[in-house]
Amino acid sequence: MQDTPRGLRLHIGLFGRRNVGKSSLINALTGQNVSIVSDIPGTTTDPVEKPIEMAPIGPVLFVDTAGIDDDGALGGERVRRTETILERVDLALLVVGPDGFGPFEARLTETLRARSTTTLVVINKSDLGAPTPALLEAAKAAGRETLTVSAQTGAGLDVLKQTIARLAPEARLEEPRLVGDLVPAGELAVLVVPIDLGAPKGRLILPQIQVIREILDSDAMCMVVKERELPDALLRLGRPPKLVICDSQVVLKAAADTPPQIPLTTFSILMARFKGDLNRLAAGAAAIERLRPGDRVLIGETCGHHPLADDIGRVKIPRWLNQYVGGGLITDVAAGKDFPDDLSPYSLIIQCGGCTVTRRHMLARLDRAGSQGVPMTNYGVAISLLQGVLPRALGCFPAALTAFERARGVGQ
Amino acid sequence: MQDTPRGLRLHIGLFGRRNVGKSSLINALTGQNVSIVSDIPGTTTDPVEKPIEMAPIGPVLFVDTAGIDDDGALGGERVRRTETILERVDLALLVVGPDGFGPFEARLTETLRARSTTTLVVINKSDLGAPTPALLEAAKAAGRETLTVSAQTGAGLDVLKQTIARLAPEARLEEPRLVGDLVPAGELAVLVVPIDLGAPKGRLILPQIQVIREILDSDAMCMVVKERELPDALLRLGRPPKLVICDSQVVLKAAADTPPQIPLTTFSILMARFKGDLNRLAAGAAAIERLRPGDRVLIGETCGHHPLADDIGRVKIPRWLNQYVGGGLITDVAAGKDFPDDLSPYSLIIQCGGCTVTRRHMLARLDRAGSQGVPMTNYGVAISLLQGVLPRALGCFPAALTAFERARGVGQ
Repeated sequence: MQDTPRGLRLHIGLFGRRNVGKSSLINALTGQNVSIVSDIPGTTTDPVEKPIEMAPIGPVLFVDTAGIDDDGALGGERVRRTETILERVDLALLVVGPDGFGPFEARLTETLRARSTTTLVVINKSDLGAPTPALLEAAKAAGRETLTVSAQTGAGLDVLKQTIARLAPEARLEEPRLVGDLVPAGELAVLVVPIDLGAPKGRLILPQIQVIREILDSDAMCMVVKERELPDALLRLGRPPKLVICDSQVVLKAAADTPPQIPLTTFSILMARFKGDLNRLAAGAAAIERLRPGDRVLIGETCGHHPLADDIGRVKIPRWLNQYVGGGLITDVAAGKDFPDDLSPYSLIIQCGGCTVTRRHMLARLDRAGSQGVPMTNYGVAISLLQGVLPRALGCFPAALTAFERARGVGQ
Repeated sequence: MQDTPRGLRLHIGLFGRRNVGKSSLINALTGQNVSIVSDIPGTTTDPVEKPIEMAPIGPVLFVDTAGIDDDGALGGERVRRTETILERVDLALLVVGPDGFGPFEARLTETLRARSTTTLVVINKSDLGAPTPALLEAAKAAGRETLTVSAQTGAGLDVLKQTIARLAPEARLEEPRLVGDLVPAGELAVLVVPIDLGAPKGRLILPQIQVIREILDSDAMCMVVKERELPDALLRLGRPPKLVICDSQVVLKAAADTPPQIPLTTFSILMARFKGDLNRLAAGAAAIERLRPGDRVLIGETCGHHPLADDIGRVKIPRWLNQYVGGGLITDVAAGKDFPDDLSPYSLIIQCGGCTVTRRHMLARLDRAGSQGVPMTNYGVAISLLQGVLPRALGCFPAALTAFERARGVGQ
């Protein structure tokens, strides 16, 4: 079985001091003995993530904030790290013990409120005695709802789960559709999926799987072919498809092989809309045309995958950019969660599709770039521009095309 | 990114006493600080698995045999557990320390040899001194090749990796093609993928992904549709597809909607051939026709997924079997690695597709059933029989069809 992709899970942040029973609470909620340990070595200062199936909510991702407590980092650093985690979570559980609210909880509450994060205050260890009225008062002021539970005895856990399930839809940032609105029921899309020699056997990449799945969910059909078979595929169809969706890396060939009356776009552009804000990312791409030798470009990756010899973000895009500009660009890579706070050295940020993170996370990056005045685009939008086919690939998204054209004009 | 499916990785078993440095060896080989801990709670007596990308070999799965050492279980139990692990590994690394070969290693060597498992003897901790001639002698007799390494200093690790890479092709049991031989280059297959309400969003199941991928690898094309769109899809194609592949659960409708001159089969039947032995599984299905009320049937699952309310193996197949037989069947489920040694109580074993395990593992189960005279089939073959369309779904596999017809005749 394939697991639900991480980026489609409800992200629940777990906040609280040591010894308030955060781990016991997860174990009790999931009925599993989950050990919250990092899958990725060398990242002990990062929050630890654990994907879980939790009835009746479904697939969730717990983000444990171990280390961000009153014994941990100093004030400013703690706030910064809490902020970074909050960029990613849909719902916060603030877990407190019977000894109640202190300055730590008060400061955390302030930060949660400033970000409008939906917060549940969970008073744990009710088996050691009922919470005092003062504690209940403080909890009530701090969160959206307050629940008293005992991870030890199980008291109150069903109510907690139901509360999470009830708040999940509003907590979760609505995602626009990936592709379903572009291919009406009964219609057909052709997907062009190159298989390069380095591709691990037996798999497709997540955006491809998600697109196939959403087309089926929309009562539409899809044809899946390699770039070489695209002309044949179009010939075999009785009438033209509604849309051709190709991998960015073959967009030039796919655009040449697809008659101009058939709309064409790329998986990356669909992901840019789904996970981020296509209009802003399209506008950001216009900055590529203004790059000059000596400028610094940040490549942002959200997953810590093993870079391939011919890695798209680390090798191909920097090479194409340098060809476009005439050499001399400086490119930095921020992998995983190392996205820098200070973006001012950069003339442009080019972000990956973000298939492993939530939309909230991608929008937070766009906001951070925007507030520092740094243009940001993504891999697919950038590649289509570098290949000279961006206006065609944005053809189904008129607002994004306008945003791109406008940003181009401003820069000239 | 999607990981390489577990069943497609080279499975490397790690054998050796405690303190010979098995964990340090994995860490040194992968350049990662891998903590070998179980992902699945409550299975501490099971071997622990860790998927790793290991250059230049590619995706491997380390199966750690912690607990099977001289301090662990008693003799008979140890042999039995070693056997169970050996059913699953392609290559064994027997790790020894400088204090060399003892009765534990001698017994292990015997077991490895009896199963013809390709074995490398790895003498670790060379930094503490060169191995004695006696140790080298014993090691040479025990394995296919002997290597002296130090996980501490890194000495010899490159040679070890190259040796594993060199032996991988012969160690790995050759898998037949999943579908590529059935759809020639330039031709097209239609895949029928039902989306039931319980299906987690944004994903497809592994056999579907593997089939799409192998069709692309074969320079062929595929059309992916839900069962309701199948008639439309066939109409839209200029000429008929070479093959229709459907989910077993919609085989009756798909068979009705597909003109008889177009070959039709199911994902499960393709997996039965790919992962097991379709001829034996087809013959096994004939036993369904001989089941009587009071008979006992074993449902074998290889992964420990969370059962759904309408789980195919736990709910649907038992229900259909009972309808077919007229009620009164007793069905047991063996999930994960709990497949019993004694199969004699059963009149039939119905096994899942085994998408998470290697072909070696599935064949070992078939062998175990065969040696005890218990017929074995798999989900998809059983469902096609229960729906009355098995001869049609085996149409592309004449040998399997003959095996089924022959087993039917024998039983009558």
